[in-house]
Amino acid sequence: MQRPAPAWVRGGFTPADPDYARRMTTDDGKGRAMELVGVSLDAFGPGWVELSVPFRRELTNESGVMHGGMVGFLADEAGGFAAFSLLPADSSCVTVELKINFLAPVSGGVLKARSQVIRSGRNLSVVEVELLAAEDGRERPAAIVLMTMMHIKGEGAPRA
Amino acid sequence: MQRPAPAWVRGGFTPADPDYARRMTTDDGKGRAMELVGVSLDAFGPGWVELSVPFRRELTNESGVMHGGMVGFLADEAGGFAAFSLLPADSSCVTVELKINFLAPVSGGVLKARSQVIRSGRNLSVVEVELLAAEDGRERPAAIVLMTMMHIKGEGAPRA
Amino acid sequence: MQRPAPAWVRGGFTPADPDYARRMTTDDGKGRAMELVGVSLDAFGPGWVELSVPFRRELTNESGVMHGGMVGFLADEAGGFAAFSLLPADSSCVTVELKINFLAPVSGGVLKARSQVIRSGRNLSVVEVELLAAEDGRERPAAIVLMTMMHIKGEGAPRA
Amino acid sequence: MQRPAPAWVRGGFTPADPDYARRMTTDDGKGRAMELVGVSLDAFGPGWVELSVPFRRELTNESGVMHGGMVGFLADEAGGFAAFSLLPADSSCVTVELKINFLAPVSGGVLKARSQVIRSGRNLSVVEVELLAAEDGRERPAAIVLMTMMHIKGEGAPRA
Repeated sequence: MQRPAPAWVRGGFTPADPDYARRMTTDDGKGRAMELVGVSLDAFGPGWVELSVPFRRELTNESGVMHGGMVGFLADEAGGFAAFSLLPADSSCVTVELKINFLAPVSGGVLKARSQVIRSGRNLSVVEVELLAAEDGRERPAAIVLMTMMHIKGEGAPRA
Repeated sequence: MQRPAPAWVRGGFTPADPDYARRMTTDDGKGRAMELVGVSLDAFGPGWVELSVPFRRELTNESGVMHGGMVGFLADEAGGFAAFSLLPADSSCVTVELKINFLAPVSGGVLKARSQVIRSGRNLSVVEVELLAAEDGRERPAAIVLMTMMHIKGEGAPRA
Repeated sequence: MQRPAPAWVRGGFTPADPDYARRMTTDDGKGRAMELVGVSLDAFGPGWVELSVPFRRELTNESGVMHGGMVGFLADEAGGFAAFSLLPADSSCVTVELKINFLAPVSGGVLKARSQVIRSGRNLSVVEVELLAAEDGRERPAAIVLMTMMHIKGEGAPRA
Repeated sequence: MQRPAPAWVRGGFTPADPDYARRMTTDDGKGRAMELVGVSLDAFGPGWVELSVPFRRELTNESGVMHGGMVGFLADEAGGFAAFSLLPADSSCVTVELKINFLAPVSGGVLKARSQVIRSGRNLSVVEVELLAAEDGRERPAAIVLMTMMHIKGEGAPRA
């Protein structure tokens, strides 16, 4: 799943951990919410990630479209992964805050998240996430996110 | 579940629809994401709502605490309900944007959301939501949210 | 100052008012805060704007760098202009909400703002603004902004 | 200006520096933007602050009301002061991010900011700020802010 950066990645980053790809794809079986929602990790590189979740009825709100909270869930996960990809091997990160603007409802197909690090500092990372509704070969913006991650050093536990 | 306003409600609002309580509790079976996550509506009044979701393993992230995306999900739902409670009978609302600050991890017990309308305008509502981790008879702040809802007029369809 | 879109503009928009450029540059002498801070409009097109403000001591905080509130001021102005450029001739807009992440301090040179509309809807626009510290021929990211504007119809009064 | 906590302060904090009040009121002449805008520090205690700025024409936008960027400026200053009041003597803080919702225009009188710390952690503080338009003996909500400050240790330089 590790890939060259697609066109939407605006910056370029060098990961602190040369072996970061292994940590991105290690599943230690603890992240259950990702399973409940049905998120898959589609592609990644240093500082960017693509996740997706197929539309299904269990994720809808009372209007029959995907619940905004589920769109936000995917964004949070995508942003965390992007920041995590640049951290040293013994570090992980937690979300300090997240701000999401909803642009259009998601009523079918697949919801994709494209996250990219805007700034990776000593203690904090700022990440942007674009959410896209992909259906019938077309992609439309669904939401846009700006979020802050705090780095946790020396925890030992790989994130994913 | 309709109750007098608790102490944490700072303002006072008059609902546009005198029969608003009926709309708050009507379940037309379409809001599936709330079932998937396990959200319950505990109490409400004009402009405020209390929701909760019990901690369970399906909602956790890779660190074993409740996934931030799930905390955000509960906040979005709570904020939407609070704004909805003040709208005319033929109106509903959608989330324009939401900003959440995470304050402490949720590792057990019940996550509660207390939402209150800050301003209910002609087209937009601004809502604040406090998230609390309740465990062993103690409540600790888990997150705080500021969000904007847009009113949708003449849709006919009750929200809940 | 009307220009072809620079490389950082990701979308493409058609202004509702073919004569929008005139409204962007009309100064009716009422916007005094822009003068106080020293903002200039450098370039614009449909849905995007470049503003700048030279660093000077009157804009600094107690650490001697540009006050974050002044960086936010420039962002608010830039975002409003970008949304305004796409509106019909009889409409203007106001800021609903704005979220800014500070990336690096601004200690000299010129602070530039590059704003672009992400979505221009019927009632609301979502705008992204990048703030750059330009000094000694180099540009560094200083802040990033996501904001929501509400359209005000039939006001008659041109914005700028 | 140090006062007992007014009714709007929801929490209670103990400052790390018993002599914090002295640092809050020391003016070393470097914070020029506060002078340019005309901000005054009216009252404070541990974890909360009241600032104000009188309405004047130099602070207005093209509609003749106070520029939103100036409202945000006051909020940023108020939030920073509130977080600063709880820090150790050798520490200061910078704004990581700020989110503001505008509730009503300010067209005269005095704009007041009431800031209070929501959480003061080891490295970050979360602060809420309410902006009020005070005119003719009446106070109306003008804006509400949620922001994050990062603590800077061992800098030696007092903030104010």
